[in-house]
Amino acid sequence: MIENINTPNDLKQLKIRDLNVLASEIRDIVIDVTSKNGGHLASSLGAVEITLALHYVFNTPKDKIVWDVGHQAYAHKIITGRREQFKTLRTYAGLSGFPKITESEYDTFNVGHASTAISAALGMTTANDLLGIKSKVIAVIGDGALTSGITFEALNNSGELDKNLIVVLNDNKMSISKSLGAISTYLTKRLTGPTYNTLRREIEKAIKGFPVLNEPALKLAKKIEESFKFFSPGLLFEEFGFKYFGPVDGENIEDLVTIFENVKNLRGPVFVHILTKKGKGYKFAEENPSKFHGIGPFDIKTGETLEKNKRSSYSSVFGNSVINIMQDNPKVAAVSAAMLIGTGLEKAKISFPDRVFDVGIAEQHAVTFAGGLAISGMRPIVAIYSTFLQRSYDQIIHDIALQKLNVVFAIDRAGIVGDDGETHQGIFDVSYLNLVPNMVITAPKDATELDALLKFAINNNYGPFAIRYPRGESINFGDQFADTIEFGKWQILNNSDSSDICVITYGNCVKYAMQAVSFLAEKGIDLHVVNARFIKPFDTQSFLNILKTFDNIIIMEENTYIGSLGQNLIAFAYLNKLEKSPKISHIALPDAFIEQGEAEFLRQKYGLSTDNLIHTVYNLLKK
Amino acid sequence: MIENINTPNDLKQLKIRDLNVLASEIRDIVIDVTSKNGGHLASSLGAVEITLALHYVFNTPKDKIVWDVGHQAYAHKIITGRREQFKTLRTYAGLSGFPKITESEYDTFNVGHASTAISAALGMTTANDLLGIKSKVIAVIGDGALTSGITFEALNNSGELDKNLIVVLNDNKMSISKSLGAISTYLTKRLTGPTYNTLRREIEKAIKGFPVLNEPALKLAKKIEESFKFFSPGLLFEEFGFKYFGPVDGENIEDLVTIFENVKNLRGPVFVHILTKKGKGYKFAEENPSKFHGIGPFDIKTGETLEKNKRSSYSSVFGNSVINIMQDNPKVAAVSAAMLIGTGLEKAKISFPDRVFDVGIAEQHAVTFAGGLAISGMRPIVAIYSTFLQRSYDQIIHDIALQKLNVVFAIDRAGIVGDDGETHQGIFDVSYLNLVPNMVITAPKDATELDALLKFAINNNYGPFAIRYPRGESINFGDQFADTIEFGKWQILNNSDSSDICVITYGNCVKYAMQAVSFLAEKGIDLHVVNARFIKPFDTQSFLNILKTFDNIIIMEENTYIGSLGQNLIAFAYLNKLEKSPKISHIALPDAFIEQGEAEFLRQKYGLSTDNLIHTVYNLLKK
Repeated sequence: MIENINTPNDLKQLKIRDLNVLASEIRDIVIDVTSKNGGHLASSLGAVEITLALHYVFNTPKDKIVWDVGHQAYAHKIITGRREQFKTLRTYAGLSGFPKITESEYDTFNVGHASTAISAALGMTTANDLLGIKSKVIAVIGDGALTSGITFEALNNSGELDKNLIVVLNDNKMSISKSLGAISTYLTKRLTGPTYNTLRREIEKAIKGFPVLNEPALKLAKKIEESFKFFSPGLLFEEFGFKYFGPVDGENIEDLVTIFENVKNLRGPVFVHILTKKGKGYKFAEENPSKFHGIGPFDIKTGETLEKNKRSSYSSVFGNSVINIMQDNPKVAAVSAAMLIGTGLEKAKISFPDRVFDVGIAEQHAVTFAGGLAISGMRPIVAIYSTFLQRSYDQIIHDIALQKLNVVFAIDRAGIVGDDGETHQGIFDVSYLNLVPNMVITAPKDATELDALLKFAINNNYGPFAIRYPRGESINFGDQFADTIEFGKWQILNNSDSSDICVITYGNCVKYAMQAVSFLAEKGIDLHVVNARFIKPFDTQSFLNILKTFDNIIIMEENTYIGSLGQNLIAFAYLNKLEKSPKISHIALPDAFIEQGEAEFLRQKYGLSTDNLIHTVYNLLKK
Repeated sequence: MIENINTPNDLKQLKIRDLNVLASEIRDIVIDVTSKNGGHLASSLGAVEITLALHYVFNTPKDKIVWDVGHQAYAHKIITGRREQFKTLRTYAGLSGFPKITESEYDTFNVGHASTAISAALGMTTANDLLGIKSKVIAVIGDGALTSGITFEALNNSGELDKNLIVVLNDNKMSISKSLGAISTYLTKRLTGPTYNTLRREIEKAIKGFPVLNEPALKLAKKIEESFKFFSPGLLFEEFGFKYFGPVDGENIEDLVTIFENVKNLRGPVFVHILTKKGKGYKFAEENPSKFHGIGPFDIKTGETLEKNKRSSYSSVFGNSVINIMQDNPKVAAVSAAMLIGTGLEKAKISFPDRVFDVGIAEQHAVTFAGGLAISGMRPIVAIYSTFLQRSYDQIIHDIALQKLNVVFAIDRAGIVGDDGETHQGIFDVSYLNLVPNMVITAPKDATELDALLKFAINNNYGPFAIRYPRGESINFGDQFADTIEFGKWQILNNSDSSDICVITYGNCVKYAMQAVSFLAEKGIDLHVVNARFIKPFDTQSFLNILKTFDNIIIMEENTYIGSLGQNLIAFAYLNKLEKSPKISHIALPDAFIEQGEAEFLRQKYGLSTDNLIHTVYNLLKK
């Protein structure tokens, strides 16, 4: 049946009961492709019926669906003309894992980071009003979005503006892992708690027991009936000025179609609460929705991932290191923003439940909360992905750096992350932290150094201390390259004062430099290699020595070049001009958003590779 | 009486009724000093009784009060040993206008930007728990904080963590101007609406009317009684897991002391809702609390401000320009985050109420909402102070720049702002925007150019377009310096190819360059001066020409040097080395938070002055 669905219009020719068959076919495609390409499986499986019902009832693409985050939009992609391309999901030049306006007219707003949908949708419906465009706007959010500040800012403003806006809550009780916080508890309590049903029954019983139903008693009964809405699970949203509908069974397409038909033409903001099951339709994902939230290739029959052993990922190295540090030091705490598993903190949470905090998708609060911990004597480590740390930029500046609080920022997924593409690359953090006064920025060259830098940060008082490390498999250069960390000091990895060329690099790129050393040694070319593990403050003395000693300098880093270590060093070199002025090449990422693709492929494409380093050496020597 | 209050301990010796006298004396001091130094008068006047009651009941500094924003903390400063210094408020090396940990042990967390208090306080009380410290933590927030996302993130997490935490809501129905959004409406409705009282009365009447009070009816009455809490103004906060108390009359110290005594030893999160009057005790401030929110020096007797005419401020130029643009183009909209007056948009709001949006203290939502407007065909202008724009950093990158949406960012208070100090200086925006792909960054040299850049931005499609301009009085160089804006092109303001020295500068610093031109001309020294109004993309061709033509280049800008235009240019010059390599001097702000003080004084101190520019010219010529 899916073969005949090329646009949502084809959908509308079907009977509602046929949509159930279609849902099952879509699930097969989603499971098949994600088992090969990896992807956000569990959320997308849970949202198939919602997707079909929305496109069945609304007139897309004229009506606009804004998917929050976009984890759940695979079915949407498949039925909006992208079924054939779907096998290219998350590959280089293939379909994005998220809705993307350049990909389809059915994708209405680029998403990727959580909780932007209501704000964007409110802007869209407001524009429609002002421009006289008749088009419905529907934001589909997950329950995780209800832990995020911008959602509340948007709800608050929606109530005030009173525009036509439909917010659909796809409530599966999970964001990435179990949904967090008081609001989540609220929703569960409201749905399952005795208040509503018990009270209703008792009142009915009592009223029946009245010997005479006099006038005031009748009026009372009416009043009480009206007041029931206050006990509905929607009270909170009604307080924000929304009309609340639900909860609706998210697996029942007929119910979903009915509710969407009912609310479609209502005036003002409407909130539809739908209960779904994350991972629905694939046994292993239903049983372990967190594992199948974002997953690499897996075996469909067994549900086993085909990825390399995750035990050696940088996240896992970090997680183990944190456990060791917490064992030694009762003042250490760790804070995550809905990413305990992703950042490797899930084991630490089990070992130290009182000192590991998952605050929800709330990066702003995570950082200021850590500030509160720090000012009262704790030593917090805040673990947030590079791209999500952008959410707490003001808190880093205003709440942490300004007071020079001892907060460690463990910045996971720094640099190119690969398949998730533009929205998720961690290619800005070095620059946006570089300009923050009091900030210390470091990057380990390998797993051993990550552990060493963490311990160094915790055992000293240098104020805000960032440690950035890449996504994926960690490496280790071996003991001969492990030395004692000194504040602000670089490490010489390959000492060759006789060489003409010095490579200054850090983090992931160190491995390219060391590979180039081996390769070039065979050609009789010596490279001096420096591990600039302190990005800020950089090692002024070492750099001055390098400027004096070498004719050629190559600076290589996995970050945008603007505001980077390299730019900082080059400007320093220019302004402190010495007798000689070495040639400098700066290999860094361009001033652009970096597309999706396999991470090593992208690094190669953008010149972050051993090949390009060797090529650059030859070029310098040629001149 | 105030003469005898040197610490909060002295307060505890007084009778409660004496506190009323004290409150009045404190108000006199606050009014007197702010009439001379300027400051946040109205909020501080409204919070005098709360301040006295808190210090009377709690054991500060062991117990920790976290003032949100800090606008309201003048009384707190006066009774915590800073009465004598209070006359130095907001002056260079004087008392900060905000709580500041380096100033007093009674100041528990640096504040300045809104809505951080609950997060910080939750961190502090959590640390106390873990470290076995017995100390109460009280966060005092304004109703404006309830429009801000981080507050909800913190409330949500508080409910989950269930730590001892007292949140005091100082509800004056105003944030900076009228408080906004659904939550504000909610609070008002809950307090004044008929639901609660009417329903309660009717139920009582009905129950009395029952001929026989049988068992089920009695049970019903009990149930209904219990359910009343659902109708209290605190419902929303109870949903977040707080015990709610209030509303309490914030002018009645006795009531305040009682409620604080009652809640002081409760377990878990507690929410105390206090009604106050912004501007209380000073007639003009009560009548016009927005005007007296943050005010410059004024005449106590008349309430008239003694400041220069604000009509020529950059904010006002911007506001008028927006009105003109909106008159011409029905697609233009303007968005403010609780700063309609501050950004100069209040008149535009009156003229175009449907197209000017004040979304509350919600910078994240403001930007993504503008993204929604833009993608649906509107041309939004988002007006946010430089320092507050940090709050929406991820939204700028992820929601606007990535999609290259046509959103104009009108960045007011860019550069040094003066009296508000470290928390409010706008000295990072050039750098943190410079590294964002697709971003256009401009700065006008004067009022005419601000208007011209705004029109240029709106009439073209260059994607995200930032225009940064300083706080305060605008200048105008006159028609001979007004030319047609061309994308990415710099403007030569003083053409002297025969000169040895080229000054590249933008924004506020242009005036120093032009003053230096006049001064040096008399000494026979010619300066070539370029207005680098396009900071990104910079004018590569012009810069290459300058590099070829001049022996000396001075780059001058009012922004941190890291990641700035200057650093970008200098690195470019190094990497594109031509035959000659001119000497370059970079005058910019250091990598540090800039303290409070009169703005021109601070600029002078940090070398942003005509004097220093002339001095730099002499130095270059000497070498």
